[in-house]
Amino acid sequence: MYADETVVRAKVLNEEIDGKTLGELKLKTITGMRVIAIRRGTSWIYDPDRDTVIHSGDILIARGPDEGVPEFYRIVTGEICTRKEHKSEIQLSRIDIAVDIIIEMKNTSELAVDLAYSAVLFQNRDIADEVRILENSMNEMKLSLERWVLEAAKEVEDVSQLQSLLHLAQSSEMISNAAYEMAYTVIKGMEIHPVIALAMRESDEVITRLEVEEGCSAEGKTIGELEIGAKTGMTVVAIRRGDRWIFDPDSKTVLRSGDLIIAKGTRLGEEMLKELLSSKR
Amino acid sequence: MYADETVVRAKVLNEEIDGKTLGELKLKTITGMRVIAIRRGTSWIYDPDRDTVIHSGDILIARGPDEGVPEFYRIVTGEICTRKEHKSEIQLSRIDIAVDIIIEMKNTSELAVDLAYSAVLFQNRDIADEVRILENSMNEMKLSLERWVLEAAKEVEDVSQLQSLLHLAQSSEMISNAAYEMAYTVIKGMEIHPVIALAMRESDEVITRLEVEEGCSAEGKTIGELEIGAKTGMTVVAIRRGDRWIFDPDSKTVLRSGDLIIAKGTRLGEEMLKELLSSKR
Repeated sequence: MYADETVVRAKVLNEEIDGKTLGELKLKTITGMRVIAIRRGTSWIYDPDRDTVIHSGDILIARGPDEGVPEFYRIVTGEICTRKEHKSEIQLSRIDIAVDIIIEMKNTSELAVDLAYSAVLFQNRDIADEVRILENSMNEMKLSLERWVLEAAKEVEDVSQLQSLLHLAQSSEMISNAAYEMAYTVIKGMEIHPVIALAMRESDEVITRLEVEEGCSAEGKTIGELEIGAKTGMTVVAIRRGDRWIFDPDSKTVLRSGDLIIAKGTRLGEEMLKELLSSKR
Repeated sequence: MYADETVVRAKVLNEEIDGKTLGELKLKTITGMRVIAIRRGTSWIYDPDRDTVIHSGDILIARGPDEGVPEFYRIVTGEICTRKEHKSEIQLSRIDIAVDIIIEMKNTSELAVDLAYSAVLFQNRDIADEVRILENSMNEMKLSLERWVLEAAKEVEDVSQLQSLLHLAQSSEMISNAAYEMAYTVIKGMEIHPVIALAMRESDEVITRLEVEEGCSAEGKTIGELEIGAKTGMTVVAIRRGDRWIFDPDSKTVLRSGDLIIAKGTRLGEEMLKELLSSKR
């Protein structure tokens, strides 16, 4: 990286560029900034080229001269950024990116363990399938992290602090891998002894994966507004939105159509939640 | 197992037999019941013999004729058990024992993952060391479980439901193994990049392991009575008592001298908790 170059991160919020290719946008020509990676949910696109299509919500990581940043930021987000703002808020190092990924890996592996035990105890293939999806994204994240750590190695003098990042990613991935091994028995249809399943959970307890149907009355509302806890007794463990995960949904989390809700509660509560997520307004 | 034989479990509560060997107790001669295994904390003793010393709190698993049960129960627990009681409460199958172990493995592996991430983020060797101890006991529990499952295979017709138990134990052990891999970097003194550690936790947050000192005013009191949460702001994550773990300590949990308290909170809270666990009454 040259001395006058900088790395920035900007989220695609400008609806006008949604669906366009990098070539069409001419970002490099106009701003001097080159998009070096794109984060879409938990997956990364490296070496994007002129044919790479940009979508709303993508996080673009770009490198280029300081003076190109404000215009780049304006095109991508649709907002004007002041010089001060971009310095403190959007400029970032490769270490910042590594932090993003490590946090995501921690959340993903912890959720994978939780769901893997649930998949086995509740003999639920939907949930086992979610563990498989989590494990897949862990593999990708580990590869991404390794790449950013190696890039970061160019920036730092003492690489020893980076070594522990590689190990952290490795063992995180091992954890989710073991979680998948556990869930795999459910996918293969291996049944657990009923005495074990019953001893480890309330007999009426279930875990479920339900989709927020398009045009249902829950769409666009928060978990709090819907009073899911009070009305159905179900606890929302996590939400999958495409290939993104919401790990700690709370009363302020807004439900969108297509969201996959993972929730625990009673069989009756499951029916009530299913009703809530499918009834038309 | 013969048709008139039964397997029972009884906890050593009778202080008079504490420290005696099985040979001295003559349980087999008096009751006809043979002690086939002893659970001490999370570890198991198989094939105990006449020189095996019994301690208070041990769980004895014994096999023998139905009519020997009441006397066996009386000697071990010091309590009289009625015929009805022993049938419903102390008789158990090998599957029941497997359930015990699997539940313990689930709790242990989940705590290991939690503590492993904490050990890395807080660069805390005490906590890393606890992960090592958890992982060791997971190995033992996996061996025990395999043994009980194989024994149980004699009792059940369809062994396929037992296969999933072996897998569950295997992947549980893999999870805690990965957790230990993570903690190992801390034991080896590998430092994490400070930016990562700070991004993943509150800057003032700590995790700590503190011992309840003998004769301190906290000894024999519950977490609720001590008002640990209100007075120090610390959350007790788990307690280790010898080689036993209390995974979900709550306000009713009584602290004993020698207990190792694992707690999260602020640096100031840690000092206050340390004071609480060491001040003499």
